[in-house]
Amino acid sequence: MRIGILGTGMVGEALAGKCVERGHEVMMGSRSANSESVTRWAERSGGRAGAFAEAARFGEMVFSCLNGARALETLQVIDAEAVAGKIVIDVSNPLVPLAGSALPSLKYGVDNSLGEQVQAALPGARVVKALNTLNCQVMVDPGRVPGMHHLFIAGNDPDAKTEVAGFLEREFGWSADRIIDVGDITSARATELLMPLWMRLWQAAGHADFNWHIAGYRP
Amino acid sequence: MRIGILGTGMVGEALAGKCVERGHEVMMGSRSANSESVTRWAERSGGRAGAFAEAARFGEMVFSCLNGARALETLQVIDAEAVAGKIVIDVSNPLVPLAGSALPSLKYGVDNSLGEQVQAALPGARVVKALNTLNCQVMVDPGRVPGMHHLFIAGNDPDAKTEVAGFLEREFGWSADRIIDVGDITSARATELLMPLWMRLWQAAGHADFNWHIAGYRP
Repeated sequence: MRIGILGTGMVGEALAGKCVERGHEVMMGSRSANSESVTRWAERSGGRAGAFAEAARFGEMVFSCLNGARALETLQVIDAEAVAGKIVIDVSNPLVPLAGSALPSLKYGVDNSLGEQVQAALPGARVVKALNTLNCQVMVDPGRVPGMHHLFIAGNDPDAKTEVAGFLEREFGWSADRIIDVGDITSARATELLMPLWMRLWQAAGHADFNWHIAGYRP
Repeated sequence: MRIGILGTGMVGEALAGKCVERGHEVMMGSRSANSESVTRWAERSGGRAGAFAEAARFGEMVFSCLNGARALETLQVIDAEAVAGKIVIDVSNPLVPLAGSALPSLKYGVDNSLGEQVQAALPGARVVKALNTLNCQVMVDPGRVPGMHHLFIAGNDPDAKTEVAGFLEREFGWSADRIIDVGDITSARATELLMPLWMRLWQAAGHADFNWHIAGYRP
C-alpha cells in the first residue's frame, strides 16, 4: 500500500518507520521535499522524501502527524482534491503554549477540535481521528504497555473507521477489542481533551509507556 | 466522623448513603433544610437533613456534589469561615448545555475548572478534586468494575490529599495503588476534561460500570 505521512516529528517518524518495516511504500512529506530531516530519514529507512503536497498525492492512505497548533495552515499547501475519497488519519493534538503554565493548552477549546477542522479543510477526505491519545512508540507497538488498553477512533464515515481499525490491527498489532469507536468526527473533541491529563501523568510517571484502558467497558 | 454532603442528586445520595452505612454522622444539605428530597432521604437512611450552610458547618469533611453548572452560585450561601481548614472534596463536573448538541459542554473551557473556582471561592478550605471521573455507584463500590482501575485526585494541600486517599481506601474500598495524585488544583482541569469522552463511552456502552485505568502507569 502507498502511505503518505505528513510531518517529520517523532510521531511521523515512528509511523513511517513502522509502515516501511511492514513492507509498504511510504513517502514522508515535509515543508520542502529536500529538507534535511526527511532526506536523512529516507536514506536511513528506505522510504521516500517529498513535499507535503506530494506525500498527500502519493498516499492511498494519509497520516497527518503535523504540529497540531499549525496543522490547518500547513494543510493549505495540499490540494484538497489530492486526498478526495482517501482516508486521512489525523493523529495530531492542537497543543498551544499557555502563558504562566508549564503545560500547554488546547487551541480549539472544548467545543471544537482539530479533527473537525481537518475534516472541514479536506471535505472530500474521509477523516478518522485516531492514535492521538498515546505515545508514538506505543502506537506502533501496543505490547510496550502490558495488559489490556484502548485506542479511540472517531470519524463520520463508518467504512473508513472499519478500514482504519483493520489497518491498525494488521500492521501495528491493535486487536479489534482494543479499538473503541467513539462516534462521529465531533468526538475528536473528547479524545483531544484527554491530552491535559495524559501530560500530567507523563510528568508524574517520568515515562510514556502507559495508555488508557476503559476497565469494565462492554460495547 | 461528621460528614457534610452538599447536594441531593444521585451523587450526593450515593456518597451520603455509603457514609451512613460506614457509621459516620452525615448531614445532607439542600437549598432548604426541610426540602422534600432531603427530608425523605434522612428518614430513610438515618442521616440528617440541613440547609447547605448547616451541612457545611456540620461536617468535619465536606463533599460538594452540587450541580456543577450552578455550584459557585450555590456555594455563596455557605459561610466560607465554616469550612476554613476543612477538607472539601469537589466531586462535581461543570456540565452545561451546548446548543445543537445532545451532549453537554464544560462551563470553564480548557484553561480553568470548577475545582479551581471552588478553591478560590473557599480560600480557607483545603479543596481536593476527586471522584468526578466515574459513575456514583462505582465511587462507593469499586468492585462493580472488574480488575484494576484508577481515581485521580488534585489539590494544593498534600496532607489533604493524603487524608482523602486514606478516607477513600478505608470507607469506599479504593486501595492506595488505585489513586493517582495528578498535581495541584489546576489539575482539576485535566480530570474534568475526561467527561466528554466518559459521556460518549457511556452512550456507546449503555451502562456506567466502567472506569479509567492507566495501563502501564508506574509513578
